[in-house]
Amino acid sequence: MPLKVVALAAILAFLPVLHCLAADAPISEATAQCLECHSVFHPGIVHDWKKSRHAAVTPKQASAAVGLARKISNPAIAEDLQNAVVGCAECHTMRPGAHADTFDHNGFEVHVVVSPDDCATCHLEERRQYGENIMALARKNLDENPVYQKLQEVILGTPRYKEGRLSFAPVDGLTRADACNYCHGTRLEVTGKVKRDTDAGEMEFPVIKGWPNQGSGRLNPDGSSGACTACHPRHGFSMEMARKPYTCMECHAGPDVPAYKVYSVSKHGNIFSSSQAGWNFSAVPWAVGRDFTAPTCAACHMSLLVNAEGEMINRRTHKISDRLGWRLFGLIYAHPQPKQPDTTVIRNRSGLSLPTDFDGTPAKSFLIDAATQAKHRETMAATCLACHDTSWVNGHFKRLDHVIATSNAAVGTTTAIMEAIWKQGLAQGLAQGANPFDESIERLWTDGWLFYANHIRYNAAMAGGGDLGVFENGRYQLTQNAADMIDWLTLRQAATASKQGKSK
Amino acid sequence: MPLKVVALAAILAFLPVLHCLAADAPISEATAQCLECHSVFHPGIVHDWKKSRHAAVTPKQASAAVGLARKISNPAIAEDLQNAVVGCAECHTMRPGAHADTFDHNGFEVHVVVSPDDCATCHLEERRQYGENIMALARKNLDENPVYQKLQEVILGTPRYKEGRLSFAPVDGLTRADACNYCHGTRLEVTGKVKRDTDAGEMEFPVIKGWPNQGSGRLNPDGSSGACTACHPRHGFSMEMARKPYTCMECHAGPDVPAYKVYSVSKHGNIFSSSQAGWNFSAVPWAVGRDFTAPTCAACHMSLLVNAEGEMINRRTHKISDRLGWRLFGLIYAHPQPKQPDTTVIRNRSGLSLPTDFDGTPAKSFLIDAATQAKHRETMAATCLACHDTSWVNGHFKRLDHVIATSNAAVGTTTAIMEAIWKQGLAQGLAQGANPFDESIERLWTDGWLFYANHIRYNAAMAGGGDLGVFENGRYQLTQNAADMIDWLTLRQAATASKQGKSK
Amino acid sequence: MPLKVVALAAILAFLPVLHCLAADAPISEATAQCLECHSVFHPGIVHDWKKSRHAAVTPKQASAAVGLARKISNPAIAEDLQNAVVGCAECHTMRPGAHADTFDHNGFEVHVVVSPDDCATCHLEERRQYGENIMALARKNLDENPVYQKLQEVILGTPRYKEGRLSFAPVDGLTRADACNYCHGTRLEVTGKVKRDTDAGEMEFPVIKGWPNQGSGRLNPDGSSGACTACHPRHGFSMEMARKPYTCMECHAGPDVPAYKVYSVSKHGNIFSSSQAGWNFSAVPWAVGRDFTAPTCAACHMSLLVNAEGEMINRRTHKISDRLGWRLFGLIYAHPQPKQPDTTVIRNRSGLSLPTDFDGTPAKSFLIDAATQAKHRETMAATCLACHDTSWVNGHFKRLDHVIATSNAAVGTTTAIMEAIWKQGLAQGLAQGANPFDESIERLWTDGWLFYANHIRYNAAMAGGGDLGVFENGRYQLTQNAADMIDWLTLRQAATASKQGKSK
Repeated sequence: MPLKVVALAAILAFLPVLHCLAADAPISEATAQCLECHSVFHPGIVHDWKKSRHAAVTPKQASAAVGLARKISNPAIAEDLQNAVVGCAECHTMRPGAHADTFDHNGFEVHVVVSPDDCATCHLEERRQYGENIMALARKNLDENPVYQKLQEVILGTPRYKEGRLSFAPVDGLTRADACNYCHGTRLEVTGKVKRDTDAGEMEFPVIKGWPNQGSGRLNPDGSSGACTACHPRHGFSMEMARKPYTCMECHAGPDVPAYKVYSVSKHGNIFSSSQAGWNFSAVPWAVGRDFTAPTCAACHMSLLVNAEGEMINRRTHKISDRLGWRLFGLIYAHPQPKQPDTTVIRNRSGLSLPTDFDGTPAKSFLIDAATQAKHRETMAATCLACHDTSWVNGHFKRLDHVIATSNAAVGTTTAIMEAIWKQGLAQGLAQGANPFDESIERLWTDGWLFYANHIRYNAAMAGGGDLGVFENGRYQLTQNAADMIDWLTLRQAATASKQGKSK
Repeated sequence: MPLKVVALAAILAFLPVLHCLAADAPISEATAQCLECHSVFHPGIVHDWKKSRHAAVTPKQASAAVGLARKISNPAIAEDLQNAVVGCAECHTMRPGAHADTFDHNGFEVHVVVSPDDCATCHLEERRQYGENIMALARKNLDENPVYQKLQEVILGTPRYKEGRLSFAPVDGLTRADACNYCHGTRLEVTGKVKRDTDAGEMEFPVIKGWPNQGSGRLNPDGSSGACTACHPRHGFSMEMARKPYTCMECHAGPDVPAYKVYSVSKHGNIFSSSQAGWNFSAVPWAVGRDFTAPTCAACHMSLLVNAEGEMINRRTHKISDRLGWRLFGLIYAHPQPKQPDTTVIRNRSGLSLPTDFDGTPAKSFLIDAATQAKHRETMAATCLACHDTSWVNGHFKRLDHVIATSNAAVGTTTAIMEAIWKQGLAQGLAQGANPFDESIERLWTDGWLFYANHIRYNAAMAGGGDLGVFENGRYQLTQNAADMIDWLTLRQAATASKQGKSK
Repeated sequence: MPLKVVALAAILAFLPVLHCLAADAPISEATAQCLECHSVFHPGIVHDWKKSRHAAVTPKQASAAVGLARKISNPAIAEDLQNAVVGCAECHTMRPGAHADTFDHNGFEVHVVVSPDDCATCHLEERRQYGENIMALARKNLDENPVYQKLQEVILGTPRYKEGRLSFAPVDGLTRADACNYCHGTRLEVTGKVKRDTDAGEMEFPVIKGWPNQGSGRLNPDGSSGACTACHPRHGFSMEMARKPYTCMECHAGPDVPAYKVYSVSKHGNIFSSSQAGWNFSAVPWAVGRDFTAPTCAACHMSLLVNAEGEMINRRTHKISDRLGWRLFGLIYAHPQPKQPDTTVIRNRSGLSLPTDFDGTPAKSFLIDAATQAKHRETMAATCLACHDTSWVNGHFKRLDHVIATSNAAVGTTTAIMEAIWKQGLAQGLAQGANPFDESIERLWTDGWLFYANHIRYNAAMAGGGDLGVFENGRYQLTQNAADMIDWLTLRQAATASKQGKSK
């Protein structure tokens, strides 16, 4: 290989590094001390950080950016933090008194879990917005909702078979942490201390129940809720990564929330997959067309977008509902977005912690009204209109509204069948004082509203193409679901009638 | 960051742009006028176009390419189109009289929907070929086939539950457009005009029913069928994108047509995913080995391929059946490719619009004969042979033929069970004047031929590896399907016998 | 486009080529002769090779690398192989007497199937390790295990319906090769010779039954087991490719072994997908942090890893069990890794070729003991610790152990239900001399331990996030599975009771 080519190749290979590393980035004395050991012991995270923006720019430098190019939102960062890059010590020794997991580590008061309240030191506005984001309450909204807990009991509880009957072991913390709370967030609790022999001698560390976890609604040892690392993984804390759909996919992958699946087969997803290598994910603000030619999840839901003239198309938000009128996710029907992120306060007409009744009536007083829905949609549509004309965008949303109505109607049908089954005593639901999710037929009904109806709606919302709305857990399966429920009911009715006939 | 590196980084970041933009590309006066407003209002599509080949090269320049390197096939492009790049006005004011959606827009006669007949201005041969492609008739073949409509009625119709029985609301246009016709194409119909306040004042626009849509068999306001934008998305109209599998995935993603799923886990798919960053997707002709080392969907099915010496391996085609002997997609059995793209003319022995009978007999007179099948396979094999020797290729196709035979036999078995069920009155099918797809057991049967048998065949055709042919909707599920049907039948027979026994 | 930019673009476009090709790489006379024809006839594989390391470096040059940078492990490569790059002839004429598929080809004794014993010429240690890898025995372990064959019979055998009963045609070789043995490997057997007209005149070739195949446990015509090309595809034989997860995905894609699915939605998978374009997949040794910031499959399971100081974190292994304590894959329960790669020798307490009993008891004497398990885990954990601290890593593995226990318990429950069903004569299992996998209820049971329990465990092992452990073939489906089995049993019991009642 000729030398010149080698040289160019070498430059190319290291470009991502050079792009982020500034030779003269001042590192604090404390961080330098951390790096001494940890660059040997934990080379993975140290290098990840070294390639990051945090390692390249001081808060003072970052604060010099003006207007929409400004990335940090706290106008008054403490003087002593201004002139060193954001390294280990800056975050892990921040506000030591506030963190229950603070421990003495080589003379530093270090805490393990860096929380949104630490990040707020620079990213004040983002933290505030995220506090109003339903995702920040994901743990509480799950763990403190009695209806969801009923479902969880018979999913996470180990099934047991005794005397011909099925029961479920109580759900334990390790299972929760591995399952639902992986995304929803665990409750981190310092339960003690432990001494460990390390390569640097014996040391004492806090024992944290629920650790590790990066769930979006994690309850932290400092009392705050959330984990910025859910979307900006340690220790690059990359904006670029959060702008790519793979990040959202981590939690929005399953049949209950098939956002990534729909995106990946959509026109937008195709253009992303085919063209992203040539896009600029680092620009702030992010210019539609110049920087990218099809939206990612972030572009539609969160990012600060401008047009080619630098005029703002949409402001940055870390409150996901800002651009959403509907909550597509059926509980058990799609419904207007909740008014506030804490959904445990919601009660439907039957007094259940659900945003809709079993007949589809929304729990109106807890949900945004039509005017607010329209406003949120308008915000979202501003982004659509950067590539599509009004008739296109209106046509799209008209279909979405129709799909929400028809998918809700379909769930109304399967729910009516389920209620008939409960009424006829062929299964035991809430009215019979039983868990409404533990029997075969109840689970069949759940498949319908939790998986198929959601596929259909997510598909319509993201113009995902036909298959996710038809044959891939879509309308084919939802109508099949109804037919299967009828089939089940008819057979049991016949069996019961036959039995009654016999016993007469 | 040293200045030189910044400069190089900047060059690299903009390479895709520079690569396609020519500083001196002459833009027509009309297009320049469009750009004045639309680059502000629709920066996404304008930039997408600006980075495109259309924005960089005039028809005259493109026509200068000789031999296999030539990309546009009309030898006689009108003089007044020769010397400006292909911009907004060139396409959207083409043949104004032919388009029902033409409207007056700032003094121009603009139409919204650019059709294949517009694209034919330069891409004459491709348009002609596509006209013979079954994909161009995808809408008609679905919407005008009474059997498929029966299936659609009970998938897209909202299920209703009344007096213990399930029925389906009539299928509406919004649902069709969101579901099947998203890929198959909608019927675009101008239904009126609407005035809208825009940032540029009040304007009048046509109202187009069925819009937006980019389905491959769209019926356009100029009467033409098809949408080049299905695979060459607006407004880059990129060949490179159509050469990547993500484009095909948009419509070939679901369990009925699992082409992308199979490809992605195949050896070819692995090599693509692992190596594509170093491939050349822009070369015309496309040289096997030099430009890429494993085929994408386009390489096997459509692209003009050459070897390292520039000798042609396969000619470009936009008629997908040119290289296909079999139609793997079961209706309800795999069968030879139809003779013509309009499949609504097909009738099986029972008079149904299906290419095979319920016992598997193909509707021969509507399907290509064995000699034509062999010729198509030979065409396909020419591409295989660019990497594999004859024994490899023969071995592959021998397995495929065997899998077509055995998967058809398996569907024959499940269909025989279904017919027994209909005959015994345990379900109501066509012979009983009922919809053969609306009952639970009928849908179970449909799962087998529509999903599992297709997985098995697609997997064999693309050497996809074991899982897509075994445990991922494959043979495991198809044999389970047969066992489930027998289980259903046995239980109902017992129930019926018990009832009859009782009533005696 | 200005000339300079064209020039740079051209350099960039060909970088991957230049990067690997050495202008002065000496090609043997024999290989030069092969290339003369095959570069025309098979440009795909020839170019793939030309871009490869094999085409750029001679064994002598490669042997000059010292320490961990050394890629070839045979210290004593024959002199006559030292000074030419590894081309067609070097591999395909190696040890001609050992290969039953050797044939005379233009004066050379060529064999079609290059085997691990050929590769061992340079990669001696890797071949030795792979020989101890369970993957090398994948064919034998499947084809010679009577229990697995029972399952295979009713999956791969074409189902037949006669006189109201379901049966299965005997499994044939073509189907095996297309299905299970695609990954597990076929038995390659030379059955004769065939003459073919080729572009270079009439030639004679061996006929090889089972060809083509690249399964990891292929039985080769030279008697060796395995195919290096399963993970290092022809003819690039790329280490880079094997380091990417797409390669593993080829065989670990389905619901039985959902490794790639879990990885792709995990935090690690997200970081890989988002950041890999900037990683260095060519470095040997592979430095955590410097070269990559999140592990791929290879990084955790096989690769030689160092820290930034070049200190070894984990040695290279081609024996996958070196870093694994548990075999997550349930047969029918997760269990300690087998002691030796040939699992056909295993017998459980009931004398079946299974590593666990139906009640979950492991076949201890055939499986590694707890101390060895701990050692393997420690090896794996060394990699984890390059990015995570001890409390994180311990927390992770504690959850995994718990999930193995609870998922095994859940399978214990469904298996107890299945045994009750067999005992009550409602299905016919092994004790009744029947195939335990051919009835609807038996397949339902199989879904549980083969798909859902494996999803749950793979998800826990790879910290895959919630959905793969809950709603995507996870705990939701496993508990549903138990409920469905109870539902089936209850109905059949009722039907039987009713029948018996009647017959009294």
